[in-house]
Amino acid sequence: MEIKVVKHILEANEVIASQNRKLFEEKGIYVANLMGSPGAGKTTLLEKTIEKLKETKSIAVIEGDIETSRDAERIAAHAIPTVQINTGGACHLDGNMVRGGLEGFDLDQIDLLIVENVGNLVCPAEFEIGENDKAMIISVTEGDDKPEKYPLMFQVSSVLLLNKIDLLPYLDFDMERFQGEAFKVNPRLKIMNISCKTGEGLDNWFRWIEERTSKKGS
Amino acid sequence: MEIKVVKHILEANEVIASQNRKLFEEKGIYVANLMGSPGAGKTTLLEKTIEKLKETKSIAVIEGDIETSRDAERIAAHAIPTVQINTGGACHLDGNMVRGGLEGFDLDQIDLLIVENVGNLVCPAEFEIGENDKAMIISVTEGDDKPEKYPLMFQVSSVLLLNKIDLLPYLDFDMERFQGEAFKVNPRLKIMNISCKTGEGLDNWFRWIEERTSKKGS
Repeated sequence: MEIKVVKHILEANEVIASQNRKLFEEKGIYVANLMGSPGAGKTTLLEKTIEKLKETKSIAVIEGDIETSRDAERIAAHAIPTVQINTGGACHLDGNMVRGGLEGFDLDQIDLLIVENVGNLVCPAEFEIGENDKAMIISVTEGDDKPEKYPLMFQVSSVLLLNKIDLLPYLDFDMERFQGEAFKVNPRLKIMNISCKTGEGLDNWFRWIEERTSKKGS
Repeated sequence: MEIKVVKHILEANEVIASQNRKLFEEKGIYVANLMGSPGAGKTTLLEKTIEKLKETKSIAVIEGDIETSRDAERIAAHAIPTVQINTGGACHLDGNMVRGGLEGFDLDQIDLLIVENVGNLVCPAEFEIGENDKAMIISVTEGDDKPEKYPLMFQVSSVLLLNKIDLLPYLDFDMERFQGEAFKVNPRLKIMNISCKTGEGLDNWFRWIEERTSKKGS
């Protein structure tokens, strides 16, 4: 019975997510859904991405958090249109929440919309929001055994950012094991090793997202 | 409408959790529900705890994971009765799953049952399983701003284990901020700074859980 309820919610969400997707398509907006555990580095990656791309792309951000508007304040400080969604307990964003958030923007002025989901390696992966790509970020401190233990997010993501590689010397992290598991779960996954702290590897990510944004733009 | 559905599920869960709690009470078993994000160090803490206490207490473990039986294999290697629950996608354990898991044990032979929940800083905090205490573990690599962003788990936990303090020299982690926020969210929270890697601070935790287990035992 519980399964039926969840299925019902997921199907209702699919409808709204499709409407969002159609709207983004019409407006020529590329949308990335950025997901990962609390503390993986989502907001810091966003800040770096905005600093790099804001001269050439019109960027907007939706911040999803259970509580507080701290992340939106961090993003808004970069002079980017930002909407904070507080889920008030819910563990993920869904299509309807994102649709509500869109009312805060002039969609004709946006090339790239990045949606930072609630920090959670599980639930956000189940809910479409109308995005073009799901991007996940995980830090090396979370351990090399996570792809097979939390497979869904690895399966649905187009790109995986492996963050905090500056900490590798102080950890027992088996890179070969991690990548092997990740590819086993999702053979099409694009993995980028990065450090938001030192900047290492970020150019790959900037190029990847800029290219996809340009294809959508008119 | 969605809220009603969730409420219904939560109420049904409360009933089963109460039945579990009554059973644990009858059998004199102390039960801790160990929660935290993926990679926070739950399984490693469990291994250290078992090694320390298994001579004086009869310990059993329920491992909750979405997929794989890796954590249960790690625990069973310590010659402790272990049950693996694979939720097959669900982001938390609930009372019913734990009740099913109990069938794998001889409850008359257990003093201390530790339930390692699914790795997730959000959802497990919402579902009672019949435990005496909720214990949360978070690592310093997850950032000092988490208590106010993910308040529920901090609110419902009796004890907070702040792990990986051996990595503090390589991070920008403001201990005062973290503790201030944690106490603001839950003034009764007992915070222990630990490193499962170096063993620092673990004696506090061992004493805490041993004491609570002894009180329950007949």
